[in-house]
Amino acid sequence: MHFDAAFYEVFSEEERLLRKYLPNDKKYLMTPSTIQEYGEEETLADIISIRTQSRIPEKWACNIRAIITRSTGYDHVLEYIGNTGAKISCAYLPDYAARAVAEHAIMMMAALLRKLPEQQESLKKFHRDGLTGSEIRNRRLTVIGVGRIGSEIVDIANGLRMKLTGVDIAPKNEIARKYSLSYLPLEEGLGIADVAICALPLTNITLGLLNYQILKLMPQGSIFINIARGEISPSADLLKLLEEKHLSAVGLDVYEYEKELAAVLRGGEDPGKVPGAAAKSIKASMELMRRTNAITTPHNAFNTSESVERKCIRTAENIAEYFRNGKFITPIDFQQSWINLK
Amino acid sequence: MHFDAAFYEVFSEEERLLRKYLPNDKKYLMTPSTIQEYGEEETLADIISIRTQSRIPEKWACNIRAIITRSTGYDHVLEYIGNTGAKISCAYLPDYAARAVAEHAIMMMAALLRKLPEQQESLKKFHRDGLTGSEIRNRRLTVIGVGRIGSEIVDIANGLRMKLTGVDIAPKNEIARKYSLSYLPLEEGLGIADVAICALPLTNITLGLLNYQILKLMPQGSIFINIARGEISPSADLLKLLEEKHLSAVGLDVYEYEKELAAVLRGGEDPGKVPGAAAKSIKASMELMRRTNAITTPHNAFNTSESVERKCIRTAENIAEYFRNGKFITPIDFQQSWINLK
Repeated sequence: MHFDAAFYEVFSEEERLLRKYLPNDKKYLMTPSTIQEYGEEETLADIISIRTQSRIPEKWACNIRAIITRSTGYDHVLEYIGNTGAKISCAYLPDYAARAVAEHAIMMMAALLRKLPEQQESLKKFHRDGLTGSEIRNRRLTVIGVGRIGSEIVDIANGLRMKLTGVDIAPKNEIARKYSLSYLPLEEGLGIADVAICALPLTNITLGLLNYQILKLMPQGSIFINIARGEISPSADLLKLLEEKHLSAVGLDVYEYEKELAAVLRGGEDPGKVPGAAAKSIKASMELMRRTNAITTPHNAFNTSESVERKCIRTAENIAEYFRNGKFITPIDFQQSWINLK
Repeated sequence: MHFDAAFYEVFSEEERLLRKYLPNDKKYLMTPSTIQEYGEEETLADIISIRTQSRIPEKWACNIRAIITRSTGYDHVLEYIGNTGAKISCAYLPDYAARAVAEHAIMMMAALLRKLPEQQESLKKFHRDGLTGSEIRNRRLTVIGVGRIGSEIVDIANGLRMKLTGVDIAPKNEIARKYSLSYLPLEEGLGIADVAICALPLTNITLGLLNYQILKLMPQGSIFINIARGEISPSADLLKLLEEKHLSAVGLDVYEYEKELAAVLRGGEDPGKVPGAAAKSIKASMELMRRTNAITTPHNAFNTSESVERKCIRTAENIAEYFRNGKFITPIDFQQSWINLK
């Protein structure tokens, strides 16, 4: 069985919309599984579409012609191309979910400032000790990475009447003016934050950037949220900062070694059997998931009906264009990209 | 043992601040218990301070000189005065927590629009089916009761770029203009709402107002939130609307028969043993607490460090003034009050 395109990691709401918008004269494989879970030796299609948890086998490199990642981040695609040296057309989906991701980050912040998990736990006995939270208004928010998603976070936080700081390699005067936002170096931005939200892309510069030592610069009792990529903030470091009560709470939609974590959670496998550095990280992530001062979600910040619709339309448009003339509409530009993971 | 004032329902963060701001030449009883849980036959003080879950015994009416409720709502005090005819000075705390309560309501909305409880549950297996939420931006919010709390809800929702409708017996042009808000009659306001938030006071008009029949006017799949008083929206009605999938989600910080519910939850008592109409309601509330499409919190929307500090300062100022000249600073005015619970 051969398909024109194979879509992995397709959740049910997505499949309906993809089939609605894709050219209907082609054959598509659609599965909720990752490539690894699906388990075929050889590729079943010329065009492979994934999200962020499949590893495309290196030996497929000669037999696939195009890759489209249904995500805004494309570090995993760069890594594949870097490892294989394959000459393959690659596409990603810029900007389809910026507002959804930003709203998710703000939702986590609002819930953590008010200790929502502890409140829900206390209601079981209708106790109310230790449930005093903080108001959002006038809190200091530092947004690390003021790109498409970061700008939307700033827009919402401004509406909530927060005090705003931005950290970015390319400060934008327009944003600074519009939102009375001050750009500061990372260390200083963290040093004054009641809440810090990471909205950075994963690059060889940001990998492990928000580690124990640098987050220790945040004030005692502050809150850290990551909706970008887990590899930027190692799970064991976040756990340690919570255990030391340096951070009061953590919000995570993304996880270091997320592919491996997902495999362990789906399979119910013992994380001890995962080889190497991943094992410690996975254990830390699972410990974070159990804590009432952490809110953890399954890489789902993008997932609104609005953004899923946009995502499926843009995926379908890219693939239709590729069928027509062998080019994507939103290709990954390897030459221009300053992102250069080893 | 006799005290100058007895404070019931005092949670730990509150006690420290009350003792800091109260005149220090007087004797105070402070307990986390309700009057019923504390269990004294006779009053231990001339001045009684409660929140919303104590019932002041009617036979105390002749032996207490003043009541101060550490809450913005004072329907329970009116009821006591109505039942006993006692000539007692009564005070309440206007406006100390309006922003905190509004932010709590918005937090619940943000979490429910994104199915936060389902996301947390799905992460255990890192599944992502059925987790598509809705963006906040451009959703239609109807605020029922645009008073102090309602106005703050409108201010925040405007910052989140929602479309705003207000329902109020006294529409304010200023709010309508500032936030592009349309005032509509209740039925019409509910009819167009993606989300409706109840911020009404409890009165003989609002008691049971948001019942099954009227909430059925909301569109299929919409969300209802109550941070005001549980008696306005009967629990069994909300449960039925969820079971019928007419409402997609419910957020509650307050509960019908809240005193009785709290007693059952604290005592681990069988709700079947509660007499009369309360039993059915308590069972419905407890069922709501178990559902993943409901977020339930223990009457805690007011509870931020900012509002607790304001609350303790204003309580202490009222009591100090009462010690000095027998009058409160923010008395309940029974003549002026249009609130007239039977």
